[in-house]
Amino acid sequence: MPHPLEIILGARSVAFVGASNNPMTMGTIQMLNTLKSHYRGPVIPVHPKEATVLGQKAYPSLRDLPEPVDLAVLVVPTRVVLDVVQDAIARGIQHLVITTAGFRETGTEGRALEAELLHLAAEGGVRFVGPNCIGVLNAESGLNTTFFPYRHASGPLGLASQSGTYVTQVIDLLSRWGIGLSRAVSVGNAANIDLADCLDYFADDEETRAVSLYVEGVRDGRRFMQAAARCTARKPVVALYVGGTEAGARSGASHTGALAGPDALYDGLFRQAGIIRARTVADLYQWGWALATQPVPRGGRVAILTHSGGPATSMADAACRAGLDLRPFPESLSERIRALIPQTGSAENPVDLTFNMDPRLLNQTLPELILACEQIDGLLMHGLQGSSFFQGMKDFAGELVPIEVEQLTSYTSHMAKPLFDMAERTGKPIVMSSFYDRSDNVVRALQDHRVPVFDTPEHAVRAMAALVRYGRHRQQRALET
Amino acid sequence: MPHPLEIILGARSVAFVGASNNPMTMGTIQMLNTLKSHYRGPVIPVHPKEATVLGQKAYPSLRDLPEPVDLAVLVVPTRVVLDVVQDAIARGIQHLVITTAGFRETGTEGRALEAELLHLAAEGGVRFVGPNCIGVLNAESGLNTTFFPYRHASGPLGLASQSGTYVTQVIDLLSRWGIGLSRAVSVGNAANIDLADCLDYFADDEETRAVSLYVEGVRDGRRFMQAAARCTARKPVVALYVGGTEAGARSGASHTGALAGPDALYDGLFRQAGIIRARTVADLYQWGWALATQPVPRGGRVAILTHSGGPATSMADAACRAGLDLRPFPESLSERIRALIPQTGSAENPVDLTFNMDPRLLNQTLPELILACEQIDGLLMHGLQGSSFFQGMKDFAGELVPIEVEQLTSYTSHMAKPLFDMAERTGKPIVMSSFYDRSDNVVRALQDHRVPVFDTPEHAVRAMAALVRYGRHRQQRALET
Repeated sequence: MPHPLEIILGARSVAFVGASNNPMTMGTIQMLNTLKSHYRGPVIPVHPKEATVLGQKAYPSLRDLPEPVDLAVLVVPTRVVLDVVQDAIARGIQHLVITTAGFRETGTEGRALEAELLHLAAEGGVRFVGPNCIGVLNAESGLNTTFFPYRHASGPLGLASQSGTYVTQVIDLLSRWGIGLSRAVSVGNAANIDLADCLDYFADDEETRAVSLYVEGVRDGRRFMQAAARCTARKPVVALYVGGTEAGARSGASHTGALAGPDALYDGLFRQAGIIRARTVADLYQWGWALATQPVPRGGRVAILTHSGGPATSMADAACRAGLDLRPFPESLSERIRALIPQTGSAENPVDLTFNMDPRLLNQTLPELILACEQIDGLLMHGLQGSSFFQGMKDFAGELVPIEVEQLTSYTSHMAKPLFDMAERTGKPIVMSSFYDRSDNVVRALQDHRVPVFDTPEHAVRAMAALVRYGRHRQQRALET
Repeated sequence: MPHPLEIILGARSVAFVGASNNPMTMGTIQMLNTLKSHYRGPVIPVHPKEATVLGQKAYPSLRDLPEPVDLAVLVVPTRVVLDVVQDAIARGIQHLVITTAGFRETGTEGRALEAELLHLAAEGGVRFVGPNCIGVLNAESGLNTTFFPYRHASGPLGLASQSGTYVTQVIDLLSRWGIGLSRAVSVGNAANIDLADCLDYFADDEETRAVSLYVEGVRDGRRFMQAAARCTARKPVVALYVGGTEAGARSGASHTGALAGPDALYDGLFRQAGIIRARTVADLYQWGWALATQPVPRGGRVAILTHSGGPATSMADAACRAGLDLRPFPESLSERIRALIPQTGSAENPVDLTFNMDPRLLNQTLPELILACEQIDGLLMHGLQGSSFFQGMKDFAGELVPIEVEQLTSYTSHMAKPLFDMAERTGKPIVMSSFYDRSDNVVRALQDHRVPVFDTPEHAVRAMAALVRYGRHRQQRALET
């Protein structure tokens, strides 16, 4: 029997109950985001009065659909949710996303309603995501029941979250950070399908190479542990748990009705399951992205390569704090580097190339030289950039700067190519930072080829440390079995 | 006698020795950045052969200038630096920025050369920034000897750094983060003008309301302490010190020849001087920006206001970790909030407004209500946004979304206005985060009115904690005197 999330995320047809022709309502926006994406199946509105919704033939009830759909999405008032679920069951629809809020998270009455919902679902053989959630996203198929259009490239990072915001409102942020999702699930109150189910599903999902989890509280610790251990044996899992402080627990309880527990408890839970614990929202996605795209390092011996001393020193300091091993290079390697860089540069670890106009050094020669060294397990870089600097000069002082920006753009894009597959070729992870964003052609090209480029040196270092931690977990596990 | 940095940053005329008509060289780019800004004084190139450089009449040597300039910027080969300094002295020019590298940071020979330079300067009554630096920026006057054009609005944050990168390559990042600089100094090797001089200068600079310092190592601890204590008595100072780890110290030594010391030593030094210690590059600028723009809180009792539970819980958790006091609201306040928000929201602290279409609640009514409470010292917010969501929908599904985006833009811009001066009116700091960037009209408007809006909930919380720390330092100081 396929996993219920496999059916939900793989749905070949979807109905939206609660979409209308008013673009200012949640249900309409959710339907639009699937309808206008590259989703290929039928997208069917259910509306009590309208004949068409968003140009699609509408049906007054799920009972009236000519055929059952793989998935029905409910965005209806709380009081009618149970009726609509009965409609679904009557029409043979067994997989739902229930966006509607007003259940366990609101107190005694809501709790009773959620119990009724669960009972009804169990009787009808229904599995559902929610209630009080934003739903699901399959960036590959274009199925998107969230509030935000997903317009950038899909990628190998899976996402499951007890907060809808961390699945939807972040989509713009993730596109700016160059992070591509495979699938995402906002579990909401997780009355039926919960984080453990998501882990079970992601463990087997071939498009997903790492998983990011946002956790406010886990109800069934044992089930969660089993699913997590199974998943982390196959792919890395990063989790952000925010219920460990008094205020975090209070906030989470009113949000999804999650039962938070002491921080140390979750720390132990995660460690035992091989889950890497993130501390911030940036960690959650950036570590997930590094883990989804980079090879697992054999150890923590990293090299740092930049063309400016400040970021080199920041990276070195942050690397030490993060427990990475930044020992000086073997003299033979330093010697070879010294022969290539200006006298004012540094050939130790970090390598500081200083001001230099030959991009091949920073983009190819030095990274290859460093990663060929057996005593280096991974490479941190800062400062790669393309044409944006000269584009900026051109915009700023065009008449005095006789530069062909187009030529430089194509030149610099070309120069970034050796890095596209360098991690794969060498089997060693590369993580970068840049003070430029995707408006720079080289940053964009690197990100689009799944080389992580983050916004600050410390973010790159922290992501590398997460890779090393996962590598240790894997080795530990190999020793135990 | 005016402070040498007052003359350098206030220079009414500047010569660039080493600028040419080749836009690919450092000196040319430095000159361009002042020439093409709104700088009003003469910008004079010095070049051994060219008659004009970048359209300006050039002189073969500083000795040939018709009048002395307030400031000469040297971007010449290391071996000729001393000669050019002699030219400057001969022409009565006493303030220099020496960009050229190849001094103390390169070893014994460079150290000797730097000593000679110092000796020559002392004899000639010359004060200089550098060598091995990117120079100075006065965002107000348009003087900019750095490598990057400064094109966004100036602001109240001063910056002094032992890394040129953290003064120049970050300019694009700072503009994206909505952070405006007053003046910036890249001290390089700090052979003559050092971080202590910068602190002295910033203490008296009226345009600067907070100072961010990037420190790789301080040579004269006592002078630094005195200058820092004087500065922090007037305005907040944030410092990022990265020389405390073995690798950080090694990297710093090769970078600026800085003498790093144990982390605990600097920790104590900073604490004693009332400097707030940052841990990351993001901290350095974001804390500085919050401190430069927001009132000093009387205590650490903060409120959190959002319209989504995930960021509310993340902020709550991060606030507890950062030592902020997130106690529940007095019942009277919660009651008033409860009456205003949907049933699915939360009226405790954090306030989670949940899904709501009335921007006035989040932008005015609730912030004012909360900040009017005597038991609240500051406000953290997440989730304000303007037209970008609907602009996105329009781009994505224009023919199905009959929304007048222009109308929404003007409406939402209008709605953000109450927040522009709310911190000033209430005397309490407001720090925000948003997953949108400046392409959103409300985020942009808030940032342009100096309301800090950072990229993640934790960054906002950390900046608020820095404000509270500075407030405590000020109270401590008041008790002592």
